[in-house]
Amino acid sequence: MMSSRLHVIKIGGKIIDDQKQLTAFLSAFSKIEDDKILIHGGGIVASRLNDRLGISNTKIDGRRITNRESLETAIMVYAGLINKQIVSRLQSIGCNALGLSGADGNCIISQKRPAHPIDYGLVGDITKVDSSLLRSFLHMNLTPVFSAIGHDGQGQLLNTNADTIATKLAVALSDGHQVQLTYCFEKPGVLRTVEDERSIIEKITLSEVADLKDQKIISAGMLPKIDNAVYAITHGVSEVIIGNISVIDNPYAPRTSLTL
Amino acid sequence: MMSSRLHVIKIGGKIIDDQKQLTAFLSAFSKIEDDKILIHGGGIVASRLNDRLGISNTKIDGRRITNRESLETAIMVYAGLINKQIVSRLQSIGCNALGLSGADGNCIISQKRPAHPIDYGLVGDITKVDSSLLRSFLHMNLTPVFSAIGHDGQGQLLNTNADTIATKLAVALSDGHQVQLTYCFEKPGVLRTVEDERSIIEKITLSEVADLKDQKIISAGMLPKIDNAVYAITHGVSEVIIGNISVIDNPYAPRTSLTL
Repeated sequence: MMSSRLHVIKIGGKIIDDQKQLTAFLSAFSKIEDDKILIHGGGIVASRLNDRLGISNTKIDGRRITNRESLETAIMVYAGLINKQIVSRLQSIGCNALGLSGADGNCIISQKRPAHPIDYGLVGDITKVDSSLLRSFLHMNLTPVFSAIGHDGQGQLLNTNADTIATKLAVALSDGHQVQLTYCFEKPGVLRTVEDERSIIEKITLSEVADLKDQKIISAGMLPKIDNAVYAITHGVSEVIIGNISVIDNPYAPRTSLTL
Repeated sequence: MMSSRLHVIKIGGKIIDDQKQLTAFLSAFSKIEDDKILIHGGGIVASRLNDRLGISNTKIDGRRITNRESLETAIMVYAGLINKQIVSRLQSIGCNALGLSGADGNCIISQKRPAHPIDYGLVGDITKVDSSLLRSFLHMNLTPVFSAIGHDGQGQLLNTNADTIATKLAVALSDGHQVQLTYCFEKPGVLRTVEDERSIIEKITLSEVADLKDQKIISAGMLPKIDNAVYAITHGVSEVIIGNISVIDNPYAPRTSLTL
């Protein structure tokens, strides 16, 4: 039997923060007929709330340091405001969305990242995904919508990178589904020249990744995305797509496709 | 076949805001072996966040007026912070909790309350509960944990009274379960004399409610609770219990019990 297709799609913070793009994305997402899972963060909105509350937005190399106060903000913004707004909007256009954090149904277990070499604070690394529960939700025609909040199973919630959640979910579900993982952000793909939006690298195979890194074509913010993508395609995911919202409903839209 | 028992339990804001009481409550709740559903608000925490953000906590007769800004706070605090903290803590003590708002799985549909005679703003009145989805979750051994956030099915989230959510869920599920509905708050029950915590009215039957109202023994804050309780027992719920956290695991704890 052919395994059914599953789309695991992560949307970036700049899409969430732009009502016009978010509306277009949700409309396209709701029309996907295969099984689908959405993952979102909301860092821009969380930073703005931290500013209003006088809570620091400390980052090291672009990565947030999460203390007790900024964890509370992240939980409120990701698992509360943004998650429920997205779920409610998806419901209004016929997509039976179910908002989740890692704690709900215990579906993702994380462990607090070790404090060395860099102490990121209350940040989680995923150790286990309950794919059978997620598969049950999909069988019920529910569409899981994950916020970037995990927990350690011992009562501690943890801030968790949304790209990584998407990757680990895609891998965990790839034993029963043919999984396509999409990182949807503001750019049309991996660019050969950062300033030139037309310089999209359309296809990357596993063997080419090292070269692209050596040539510094893949660098800075793109590095963790590519490392996640490599992990995905070497652990059962069929294809990873990197692109902007147009890749969701336009098969001819530019994109970067990573395969083995 | 005897229908299985279901406990629908609502906890009040003062329990949520008191870590010692909340811990004791969650421990007792997690040990209930029958099917169970928890409903919570979080008004005290939301008011505190509104104060920090300079958002007004306007109330009329003790009921919050919800504008766009205070709705966002309510969503963040109820569906985000408090819901995920409770879910994560329940998971840590062996209760497979699943956090929900009315929007998740479209399980509760509300309509915005008419602006006349009093305009409460973005507040919802429940029109439909999807009991079959909730029953599916219970069959999966999941314990739904509801925040007091609903939606209208058209993309608008709405602040919704937690007592009312508990009542409507209890009624909707009473066609397949024998439902006991508990309003758990800081007092040991309905008091004959407000100042005297020993003056608990242990049993109230439907026929006695009007008299207790006439005598002003039931008044002020207790009125909506009793009206919800009356609605519940006249629409299929077996028993409504009003008491403090000790009623959850101590069958001899004082309480008020309402039955037909």
